[in-house]
Amino acid sequence: MRFIRDEIIEKAKQIKLLAFDVDGVLTSGQLFYTSQGQEIKAFNILDGLGIQLLHDHGIKTAIITGRESEMVAQRASELNISHVFQGCQDKLSTMQELLDNSCLEFADIAYVGDDLPDIPLIRQAGLGVTVPNGHLFVKKYADWCTLTSGGNGAVREVCDLILEAQGFLLLSLEAILESQ
Amino acid sequence: MRFIRDEIIEKAKQIKLLAFDVDGVLTSGQLFYTSQGQEIKAFNILDGLGIQLLHDHGIKTAIITGRESEMVAQRASELNISHVFQGCQDKLSTMQELLDNSCLEFADIAYVGDDLPDIPLIRQAGLGVTVPNGHLFVKKYADWCTLTSGGNGAVREVCDLILEAQGFLLLSLEAILESQ
Amino acid sequence: MRFIRDEIIEKAKQIKLLAFDVDGVLTSGQLFYTSQGQEIKAFNILDGLGIQLLHDHGIKTAIITGRESEMVAQRASELNISHVFQGCQDKLSTMQELLDNSCLEFADIAYVGDDLPDIPLIRQAGLGVTVPNGHLFVKKYADWCTLTSGGNGAVREVCDLILEAQGFLLLSLEAILESQ
Amino acid sequence: MRFIRDEIIEKAKQIKLLAFDVDGVLTSGQLFYTSQGQEIKAFNILDGLGIQLLHDHGIKTAIITGRESEMVAQRASELNISHVFQGCQDKLSTMQELLDNSCLEFADIAYVGDDLPDIPLIRQAGLGVTVPNGHLFVKKYADWCTLTSGGNGAVREVCDLILEAQGFLLLSLEAILESQ
Repeated sequence: MRFIRDEIIEKAKQIKLLAFDVDGVLTSGQLFYTSQGQEIKAFNILDGLGIQLLHDHGIKTAIITGRESEMVAQRASELNISHVFQGCQDKLSTMQELLDNSCLEFADIAYVGDDLPDIPLIRQAGLGVTVPNGHLFVKKYADWCTLTSGGNGAVREVCDLILEAQGFLLLSLEAILESQ
Repeated sequence: MRFIRDEIIEKAKQIKLLAFDVDGVLTSGQLFYTSQGQEIKAFNILDGLGIQLLHDHGIKTAIITGRESEMVAQRASELNISHVFQGCQDKLSTMQELLDNSCLEFADIAYVGDDLPDIPLIRQAGLGVTVPNGHLFVKKYADWCTLTSGGNGAVREVCDLILEAQGFLLLSLEAILESQ
Repeated sequence: MRFIRDEIIEKAKQIKLLAFDVDGVLTSGQLFYTSQGQEIKAFNILDGLGIQLLHDHGIKTAIITGRESEMVAQRASELNISHVFQGCQDKLSTMQELLDNSCLEFADIAYVGDDLPDIPLIRQAGLGVTVPNGHLFVKKYADWCTLTSGGNGAVREVCDLILEAQGFLLLSLEAILESQ
Repeated sequence: MRFIRDEIIEKAKQIKLLAFDVDGVLTSGQLFYTSQGQEIKAFNILDGLGIQLLHDHGIKTAIITGRESEMVAQRASELNISHVFQGCQDKLSTMQELLDNSCLEFADIAYVGDDLPDIPLIRQAGLGVTVPNGHLFVKKYADWCTLTSGGNGAVREVCDLILEAQGFLLLSLEAILESQ
């Protein structure tokens, strides 16, 4: 695994909930429109397994996005992401409510975002993460930037960081090796 | 922000309207065709917020494209782009008419294009911009070339340049930080 | 324009017909399948204008592909490509027939292909071209390899080479500049 | 062809069956979802010809994937891949059964995978292969990693390795050159 500063590892150790934006994070930011009025989004298989491994070890996940689409609902359902907030204009307030209902604090969450509306939540989150394709301003406020761009496995990289920091990543590997 | 020559900043300060081509600028230039006769275009989330921020600060936007599609109409409507010219064969005349009706001059507009038919308008525009994936000839006539390629946030880069030159970019950030 | 060997320029001067493969040349090689049995191909806007400029200057174009799809028929029709051979198993024989009917010789044609079945035609063509994403063996037999990969404007690059060699490229630019 | 260690060539000489994962291997890992509930996958033309060449020389192929989709069934049918295991939770057991029914041993198979669930089979396979976009852990267990990423011709690279090691690649080329 790439070298990661101790400070980031320490933050990752505390994470009980990983929240992320959709466009530019779970996707590359491409919005496909068809001539019949349909929309298409491209997710990535790598992120899916990372989210599943977090769930296996009791770490929760949430989606917070400014847009609304059927595709996000479908992907979230497939991955058993219990908290899905679409059409969200104020991501920080949304997260505050979620925390209030979950007995969690900002230090317990990691958040991955790529553009200006993500900055307030990135600043408050215990671990604020952005992606290489993110806006320059977002990079200034994030604790950490993934190597992989959005839609190519960026969220998996954050999942791996959290799993590694909490000692679960090798356990996941061993479970897979032993089960077979 | 990347280093930008003073001359470009000066031009960007004057811009009251940002116009852009679609294929190769707002998209990567890919034209998706389906076996049932549908067409698909892939826009980018980053451009959307840039256009919205321009509108917030009173800078208008326009689309001028040689092709015609439902997808462009839909995306333009979603982003509240008031001036949309599709199937346009003579982009310079179209812009001339738009300027006549808007009490604007060529020095007041920026235009982003990627291929030969864009050159006349790029030459006349106060700020003529192209993209890395643009034709070599277009690059010779453009004042500026974005770092990001079309469909990956090139238009956002021009929005940021204009916002920055006019002192609005940090204001946008502060508005977001304070509203939450 | 990039440096091009005299030998290639000489070959390009003779070209009266540009033929090309589809998958990997006019597209990136991606074959999109939908869960409802549709297929999708992604063409590129840059290639379209190049083909149109060739036609403007009396140079013909042809598609020769081993697969069959509605999308190719649609794109070819849109671009007025008169010779379209789909489901073609022996590309060299197909071209031989086309030449016989057109009073052309192999020295008069350029052909762009990316994989083993393209090699016989690439060897016979006056100008045999491949793409960076083409198979290693094809590169050994091609006279020239584009800088741009298939689906990103590779065919446009060949169009520009032919137009430039025959003195038409600057004419095209001047026509555009003067018409507006 | 790139330099390949003798040990890998030796392993490739023994291969009678090439099996591979789908998402991240036969595709880039992108999962396209439409607003009408359809799914889309993007395969690559290069892999198709490689699989066909393997079949021509009596080497079998198999798909083993954890997900289920119509698109994989369609592509597999088109390419005459006789063994297709979708929705597979334990890839090693699935392969064991296939071997039992085929009078083959693990030393006779190559397997290409990209993520943790592929590791047990990659370890057992005579030739365990991964892709540049694969997970770091997978790379530690694989004998070989392709240069091309999944969905861009990674499987073709493995086909070529096997064909080359068994002396079939130049034969394929000669057959194509002579038949025309």
